[in-house]
Amino acid sequence: MYNKIQFSLSFCPLCLSEILHDLAVAWEPNKPLVIEEIEVAPPQANEVRIKIVATGVCHTDLYHLFEGMHKDGFPAVLGHEGAGIVESVGPGVIEFQPGDKVIPLFIYQCRECRFCKSPKTNQCEKGWAADRYDVMASAESRFTCKGKKILQFMGTSTFSEYTVVNQMAVAKIDPTAPLDKVCLLGCGVCTGYGAAVNTAKVEPGSTCAVFGLGAVGLAAVMGCKAAGAKKIIAVDINPEKFEKAKVFGATDFLNPKDHSKPISQVLSKMTNGGVDFSLECVGNVGVMRSALESCVKGWGVSVLVGWTDLYDVATRPIQLIAGRTWKGSLFGGFKSKDGVPQMVKAYLDKKVKLDEFVTHNMTLAQVNDAIELMKHGECIRTVLSVSPQ
Amino acid sequence: MYNKIQFSLSFCPLCLSEILHDLAVAWEPNKPLVIEEIEVAPPQANEVRIKIVATGVCHTDLYHLFEGMHKDGFPAVLGHEGAGIVESVGPGVIEFQPGDKVIPLFIYQCRECRFCKSPKTNQCEKGWAADRYDVMASAESRFTCKGKKILQFMGTSTFSEYTVVNQMAVAKIDPTAPLDKVCLLGCGVCTGYGAAVNTAKVEPGSTCAVFGLGAVGLAAVMGCKAAGAKKIIAVDINPEKFEKAKVFGATDFLNPKDHSKPISQVLSKMTNGGVDFSLECVGNVGVMRSALESCVKGWGVSVLVGWTDLYDVATRPIQLIAGRTWKGSLFGGFKSKDGVPQMVKAYLDKKVKLDEFVTHNMTLAQVNDAIELMKHGECIRTVLSVSPQ
Repeated sequence: MYNKIQFSLSFCPLCLSEILHDLAVAWEPNKPLVIEEIEVAPPQANEVRIKIVATGVCHTDLYHLFEGMHKDGFPAVLGHEGAGIVESVGPGVIEFQPGDKVIPLFIYQCRECRFCKSPKTNQCEKGWAADRYDVMASAESRFTCKGKKILQFMGTSTFSEYTVVNQMAVAKIDPTAPLDKVCLLGCGVCTGYGAAVNTAKVEPGSTCAVFGLGAVGLAAVMGCKAAGAKKIIAVDINPEKFEKAKVFGATDFLNPKDHSKPISQVLSKMTNGGVDFSLECVGNVGVMRSALESCVKGWGVSVLVGWTDLYDVATRPIQLIAGRTWKGSLFGGFKSKDGVPQMVKAYLDKKVKLDEFVTHNMTLAQVNDAIELMKHGECIRTVLSVSPQ
Repeated sequence: MYNKIQFSLSFCPLCLSEILHDLAVAWEPNKPLVIEEIEVAPPQANEVRIKIVATGVCHTDLYHLFEGMHKDGFPAVLGHEGAGIVESVGPGVIEFQPGDKVIPLFIYQCRECRFCKSPKTNQCEKGWAADRYDVMASAESRFTCKGKKILQFMGTSTFSEYTVVNQMAVAKIDPTAPLDKVCLLGCGVCTGYGAAVNTAKVEPGSTCAVFGLGAVGLAAVMGCKAAGAKKIIAVDINPEKFEKAKVFGATDFLNPKDHSKPISQVLSKMTNGGVDFSLECVGNVGVMRSALESCVKGWGVSVLVGWTDLYDVATRPIQLIAGRTWKGSLFGGFKSKDGVPQMVKAYLDKKVKLDEFVTHNMTLAQVNDAIELMKHGECIRTVLSVSPQ
């Protein structure tokens, strides 16, 4: 039934071994991934097996490993920001054929459910994001290692030479697209850019604040600029990020460490009452609150972009009663199968930047080095070369 | 300089006496208002002196007295849901003349600030709501009692035979309007109705949930119906309110006490994933959270309508990241001078109901009885007759 394909992939071996030995309570942070040989079963009905060529390392991979740490989420193959080439397809797949360049999608687009049919949202009733957001990993995977099932992370698992995903979670992209760049459209860049353009609906001439200048935040800055914002205030506690933020369109820079007052008060003073739009791209509930409270009363819109779900996010009711709006989005509100090819095209047409996000190139074998770089804020994006094209 | 006008008004005498004797810490809830003789100075530049004919008693009056209890907010003349007749005008007032029927407004509309000029909001840079929302009362009043200045509550102070307000906080209304009904448009009915129509922007065919069936909640139900909602679920822990909710358009009824599960789960099951719009009309941060979490992912919109500002309101980030929107509004998003006359006209044209909100009629001397009724949830609205027309 299974083809045995030998290849490398990374997963958390401690979790694996602990689950194998029923020692889930011993999970700990900072444990490196290990390259193992696993089996990837062939695609079943409606599935596509993809040779991953390149993958970014995103903070959500780290979140799962070091913060979320849901016991039912391990052992898993991490990675969700990849690009590759279709290797084979299962029965019922007519949209894809071997050789197609594709990006696996962590949000399904089934095109049939009421969410897919609504122009208001990119949620879909299918896939992990529909009902397994807490666990973030699904047992519906084709991975086996040492006789054990390995979970699929966010429906994609791109830290692997091969992965099998449902055809509802694959976007076919322009065959000329460089996979080591457009892989970033599998998560971070679409997430930040779309949060500004689709979710916040940033308006021409407006004033924006972007909190956190990782890849998602920089993409949000780029989205604000694309939407015509006049003033884009880049906020980060690491001032080394400011130069890069300028490349993407930031006009003003703010380091909360330079101020004794709450950053919302500093921004309010800078902007005569607060910004029109704010985007939280850190994944920290305290920053989420600051971002909301940095908005102007009456019409300020704040969007949660960074992922976290460990704590409550809170504010005083008056902040909303005074006319602010608090929103959030996953994957920048892009309907995944529709949006990703459009963003690839926008990159090829030089309407969105991607190259500027890539600060490091490594191989899959160096995934732990990439994780360390990200943990210490020393990269924007590291792209891992996984398989040769 | 002052005309001495003898008349009755109510304020919190304990607070007064305590402040006089520097005993502010002894403030306590449940202290009755007392009818006193006070002086109301004539209107100064841009002010209008109004003979209040009728006033509703709103939960926000009780909030100030029993929950907010801000030490800088006493002694004050309460009441902010009144209607009356212009008695005299100060220099610079040309929009009003004695005899005009008017409703005093707790949100200014100066027509000149950037908020007034924006179609997005009814906030105004002027008035107590712009910068004194925590105190809710202003020393900029024309009230004196026993030689002491009495504060003006929410810029209006309608528990008084006469009050003086800025002309930016007065709406001239149709001279045929019955003041003992349209007074309710000074707060509760506009607040609830507008929250559905203006803030939530309830859509035809949608499913809505309204939490809390006081006057504001019933007005929200009426707003949902006017906007074309198909299913309007009325939620209250007092099932005696359900009959009245039906009058205003509710189609389904839910008593959280009848269920062991969280009400958001009950509503999610009732509505295949959650409601499209929810409106919190209680002023309780726990209910605010439930209302948000009762919304469907992807596009659910929840609006904070009830007033409270003592505690944080909170939720998990995923609730927003999954596509829900959290909003709020003051006075239902109506630009006050524009909106109130329109709502008066809508009442005269039988497009909105008002009579059905009035469960009790009393006199100003009975204000404490009215407060007790409201505290125990035994009325929808009590209208106090203040002065003869």
